[in-house]
Amino acid sequence: MGKPAPPSPFAPASLPDVPLVPGVRFATAEAGIRYQGRTDLLLGVFAPGTEVAGVLTRSKTRSAPVDWCAIGLRDGKARALVVNSGNANAFTGKKGMETVVITADAAAAAVGCPPGEVFIASTGVIGEPLDAGKFAHLLGKLAGEAKADAWHAAARAVMTTDTFPKLATRTAKIGGVEVVINGFCKGAGMIQPDMATMLCFVFTDAPIAAPALQTLVADSADRTFNCVTIDGDTSTSDTLLVFATGEAEKRDCPRIAEPTDPRIADFAAALHSLLRELAILVAKDGEGITKFVTIEVEGAEDDRAARRIGLAIGNSPLVKTAIAGGDANWGRVVMAVGKAGEAADRDKLSIRFGDILVAHEGERAPTYREEEVALYMQRPEIVLRVDLGIGDGRATVWTCDLTHGYIDINADYRS
Amino acid sequence: MGKPAPPSPFAPASLPDVPLVPGVRFATAEAGIRYQGRTDLLLGVFAPGTEVAGVLTRSKTRSAPVDWCAIGLRDGKARALVVNSGNANAFTGKKGMETVVITADAAAAAVGCPPGEVFIASTGVIGEPLDAGKFAHLLGKLAGEAKADAWHAAARAVMTTDTFPKLATRTAKIGGVEVVINGFCKGAGMIQPDMATMLCFVFTDAPIAAPALQTLVADSADRTFNCVTIDGDTSTSDTLLVFATGEAEKRDCPRIAEPTDPRIADFAAALHSLLRELAILVAKDGEGITKFVTIEVEGAEDDRAARRIGLAIGNSPLVKTAIAGGDANWGRVVMAVGKAGEAADRDKLSIRFGDILVAHEGERAPTYREEEVALYMQRPEIVLRVDLGIGDGRATVWTCDLTHGYIDINADYRS
Repeated sequence: MGKPAPPSPFAPASLPDVPLVPGVRFATAEAGIRYQGRTDLLLGVFAPGTEVAGVLTRSKTRSAPVDWCAIGLRDGKARALVVNSGNANAFTGKKGMETVVITADAAAAAVGCPPGEVFIASTGVIGEPLDAGKFAHLLGKLAGEAKADAWHAAARAVMTTDTFPKLATRTAKIGGVEVVINGFCKGAGMIQPDMATMLCFVFTDAPIAAPALQTLVADSADRTFNCVTIDGDTSTSDTLLVFATGEAEKRDCPRIAEPTDPRIADFAAALHSLLRELAILVAKDGEGITKFVTIEVEGAEDDRAARRIGLAIGNSPLVKTAIAGGDANWGRVVMAVGKAGEAADRDKLSIRFGDILVAHEGERAPTYREEEVALYMQRPEIVLRVDLGIGDGRATVWTCDLTHGYIDINADYRS
Repeated sequence: MGKPAPPSPFAPASLPDVPLVPGVRFATAEAGIRYQGRTDLLLGVFAPGTEVAGVLTRSKTRSAPVDWCAIGLRDGKARALVVNSGNANAFTGKKGMETVVITADAAAAAVGCPPGEVFIASTGVIGEPLDAGKFAHLLGKLAGEAKADAWHAAARAVMTTDTFPKLATRTAKIGGVEVVINGFCKGAGMIQPDMATMLCFVFTDAPIAAPALQTLVADSADRTFNCVTIDGDTSTSDTLLVFATGEAEKRDCPRIAEPTDPRIADFAAALHSLLRELAILVAKDGEGITKFVTIEVEGAEDDRAARRIGLAIGNSPLVKTAIAGGDANWGRVVMAVGKAGEAADRDKLSIRFGDILVAHEGERAPTYREEEVALYMQRPEIVLRVDLGIGDGRATVWTCDLTHGYIDINADYRS
């Protein structure tokens, strides 16, 4: 392994204290799968009746654990979650699924549930067989040790080369009863060997049936995690799972069966806000980041077009290197809008850096002053605003700049 | 401007000597549009009856000169070409088209043709108005000076921050008569401020009607210039124009009206070979290049899918940084195949670095030896071979690695 990347300048000062989520317990271990001297195995244990929904990578070469989760999500029932870091169990042929089955069997025995109710995520090196013998035997002991207040330990155990752990919390009311939503994730900071796998796990005591939860999660993921880009690469392992224990029913919280139930509105907003916070934390830990960039697109043909345009800007190496260099190079933003393939009219396009209008009606704004924009570009957090001027579609995309740090991290030989 | 980038390690030792193309003359000038002490204006003058075909950027924010060429290509008649470097006349609002019209009028007067038979290309800074007053008055003098043997000067005048000029030649036979095809291009080496605009101009004395020529050019561009990627960004100005003077008719070369005419086969092959050579020269001058990379995809669903997979690999920052670091990181190639969105079956995929099988049937090849592949990765020219194993589709894509040099070039402040 190369030397660790320096911490992101956007790392929060401390991890938040989060309340307990009734029906959720965690335990972690140092299994030594790849890393030494740190936890790399997480077991989550959930109360009977826990429902689960989720969103998985669209990669055509997705990993064995992702294949497994896709099957489990059809039933929507969960009793356990096993996450390991250090090895992604991706592109590992038939052995990959064998490892997953051994892991699920061990966790099922430890927790007392069918293997199909065990969810599994792996992150780390691709193409190296993952030996379940390194950690499956630990799951029984972990199930006995699992604690309701182990959130910080859980958030740390899933990290690979993230420079800080990512944990957030919200509360919401359903039918007048307060419920808790906690979540943690790992993001875009893998030095070796492969890619910015994103794993995110969210837990609530709200009683929501899996199909209804699925609707909320899919909608919200589209506007949060699917709007974060570091380098445009798609991991074989990206996984977002939301577990709902339903324990709040014991406090007379009504059970929600339909996503259209109006009583879910506050929960849906809180879940979205939580996912947004976690997604932004992922962008703020982007490999080699020196500037955090928010891209706000409006006036596009529709929201989908707005997101594609935002991602085209956020994925453009030329835009990202310009920002790294403090260069208000709006010509590259025009280029990226043009390449997105969505409806655009050069002569209706306007671009702002922060609140400063730089381009308007197909040309440089008459009020444009290079010094003013150059000063803005010195800030650590940059907002690019693009108005297509042709419709009502809007989207927000979060990214970071492209720096020598990114090259250092990713051109490192694996050794 | 920053300091010039160092020359590409793949620059040819010298520019080739090329034969004359009957009916084609060039003149160049130092107009001082942006650069000082170098030529930045090219006038091409063509014999009456010259036909033209071409391919233009698909950007939705394309430049005024591209809009102009699109109109001219409908008629397919050309008598002059004006190219300036230093200013792309892109995102310049209504003024952009005014500049184009002034330029076309001036060239038309100089050459003695309708303005619609003047083709125009501009490359350089975006969003700065291009003042035709800087160069339009020079065109009359240039028309008088134009010479048949000014190929080296022409190839140099269109450069922006290319580190070497790019010129190639072929001959072909049509109905037993030899014709000449010369071409030059500029590529992916713009420091300031904007992007890797690709301009390519090809000239032949073959008598081929514009619609037939268009079919050949579009087909060949798809397999040559549209298979080159430096950073996945699409210029507002990319232009490929092929001019056919028809002068070989005077040597009894038959006139070709249909692309299906079997007498055109040798010419089509020669044109394709020329475009391929020029496209590869563009990749070999990629910004910050230290490794030239050829990606050969086969076994895809169809050729289109193969090209998309090849481009997904060639555009992946993670693949490109791995190659820069000499890392045979085939896991990143698997990732890039997975993200392309085309049909793929993880367990039928095989990957070779050069002739070395690294991954096979969904996992690391049993014969894989890290040392052997690491040694291969030290070479300056790397071939990645991907076999999807599901169909007959194939494509070749050319690119370069992603290095600190790229960041240096593109994160430079424009100043």
